[in-house]
Amino acid sequence: MQTRSGFIGLGVMGQPMALNLRRAGHALTVHARNRERARPLVEAGAELADSPAAVARAADVVFINVSDDAAVEAVLFGADGIAAGLRAGAIVVDMGTTSPTATRAFAGRLAGLGASLLDAPVSGGEAGARAGTLSIMVGGAATDFARVAPLFQALGGNVVHVGPAGAGQVAKACNQIAVSATLLGVAEALTFARAQGVDPARVRAALLGGSAYSRILEIHGQRMLERNFTPGFRARLHRKDLDIVRAEAGAALTALPATRLAGELMTRLVEENGAGELDSAALVTVIEGMLAGKIPDA
Amino acid sequence: MQTRSGFIGLGVMGQPMALNLRRAGHALTVHARNRERARPLVEAGAELADSPAAVARAADVVFINVSDDAAVEAVLFGADGIAAGLRAGAIVVDMGTTSPTATRAFAGRLAGLGASLLDAPVSGGEAGARAGTLSIMVGGAATDFARVAPLFQALGGNVVHVGPAGAGQVAKACNQIAVSATLLGVAEALTFARAQGVDPARVRAALLGGSAYSRILEIHGQRMLERNFTPGFRARLHRKDLDIVRAEAGAALTALPATRLAGELMTRLVEENGAGELDSAALVTVIEGMLAGKIPDA
Repeated sequence: MQTRSGFIGLGVMGQPMALNLRRAGHALTVHARNRERARPLVEAGAELADSPAAVARAADVVFINVSDDAAVEAVLFGADGIAAGLRAGAIVVDMGTTSPTATRAFAGRLAGLGASLLDAPVSGGEAGARAGTLSIMVGGAATDFARVAPLFQALGGNVVHVGPAGAGQVAKACNQIAVSATLLGVAEALTFARAQGVDPARVRAALLGGSAYSRILEIHGQRMLERNFTPGFRARLHRKDLDIVRAEAGAALTALPATRLAGELMTRLVEENGAGELDSAALVTVIEGMLAGKIPDA
Repeated sequence: MQTRSGFIGLGVMGQPMALNLRRAGHALTVHARNRERARPLVEAGAELADSPAAVARAADVVFINVSDDAAVEAVLFGADGIAAGLRAGAIVVDMGTTSPTATRAFAGRLAGLGASLLDAPVSGGEAGARAGTLSIMVGGAATDFARVAPLFQALGGNVVHVGPAGAGQVAKACNQIAVSATLLGVAEALTFARAQGVDPARVRAALLGGSAYSRILEIHGQRMLERNFTPGFRARLHRKDLDIVRAEAGAALTALPATRLAGELMTRLVEENGAGELDSAALVTVIEGMLAGKIPDA
């Protein structure tokens, strides 16, 4: 018997992910607050449901991709939420970036209803979502992971079962720690080159071939050179993710000085007029502002 | 007429680079303070010279790979230095990491002697030196770069003419800025995973497939997991390179907060007993020490 899937939240990431599930031949029921976002899915043969509860009634595996902890809670347990329509033994898969602590609480509440949760945040951006090449970091029970693995295959190229409930979200936090420090390093490197009168494009080209190679240097470094800050991944969402790290780390934040620094600088960027909607590569403008003395030093 | 090359400084990087030049069929004269280091070169058909001046008398292009600014100055202008034996129109190629300011001064002095300098520091480590896949960042005149380009082909896979004298060393400084911040991000990410009770090896595996991919995560992340701090690239040399950045940046250092932070933490590592001789991936132990409250917060 084929697994019937559901997908709730058809935003920049969710819509192409749901389309990839459908194109891989999986039976799919979808819901989005903005019905327009569901149109390509319906054209591809998905069923449209008018609430998260209705999706849950139709599906054994329900994917969610919404914006933050509060939105996940509303989709799960709000009026006409998933909990109101859960099938016995259903698996809910949260593919957004949610705090590990909230994730563990949601998992406990779903277990009390005879269902289970996998946390499965992703890395790779809209391009990875479209191409089905996301990195997917999964937390939850191994048996649930095994059941959903064939569906993950349609979404990602690197699917790793990291550990129990919340472990996927911890991995995503680690991802954002590594990405933020790298982004800061690339911004400082290109700014230093410019300050020294050396062409930053040639510096980037030279660095791409050696130990400094990173996907961030390749993609965000190019955006910094072109001053192309069309998202991509919005600075305000990057800041939100670093806020999750800060909240989870608690006292341990003192041992994450680069993460703390990146969070402070990302906050400065977001607090500029409208910059929160720019790609997070715009962090380079904060470094440049500090160099020019227009922004106080960190 | 074939260019005759020389190579001075046959250390961890210089020896395999010189061997690659020789194996590519280039006529080669070598010199090292420790004659034992020259033995594999002589076995491969290189001539052995007893001083930098003697190398210079035999070669049109003289490569140098020594430890720091003072060593470069001694090889160039000290007793029996290159300057004492320079052929007319010779090109000296400094492949070590030297400060941009000292590089520009050396280039000026060599020009006064009818010779020229290319600064050509590398990235890619001992493995890249052996495999001939280094990234080579070159500063100097375009005509000199064109003359040496066929020789660079034997050494590196990514050879970029960055700009005029010193520009290669600026690019190398940028490389160390990007590498240091990335190293710090990887150390913090893996430490955060451990602090949250999540397997850092699985986190690294998940991160390798997404936006957090970097060569540092791949190579140094693995060393951090294995607690394998056999160099590789020694922490004291990494600190030396960050000292160059600090000296060159001057007042602009305030706009390089992640670089400054990495420099401070690398200094803490080096000041531990013997840790300067460890691979710079040992930076993770400083982060762990801060988490455990054994090392004061940055």
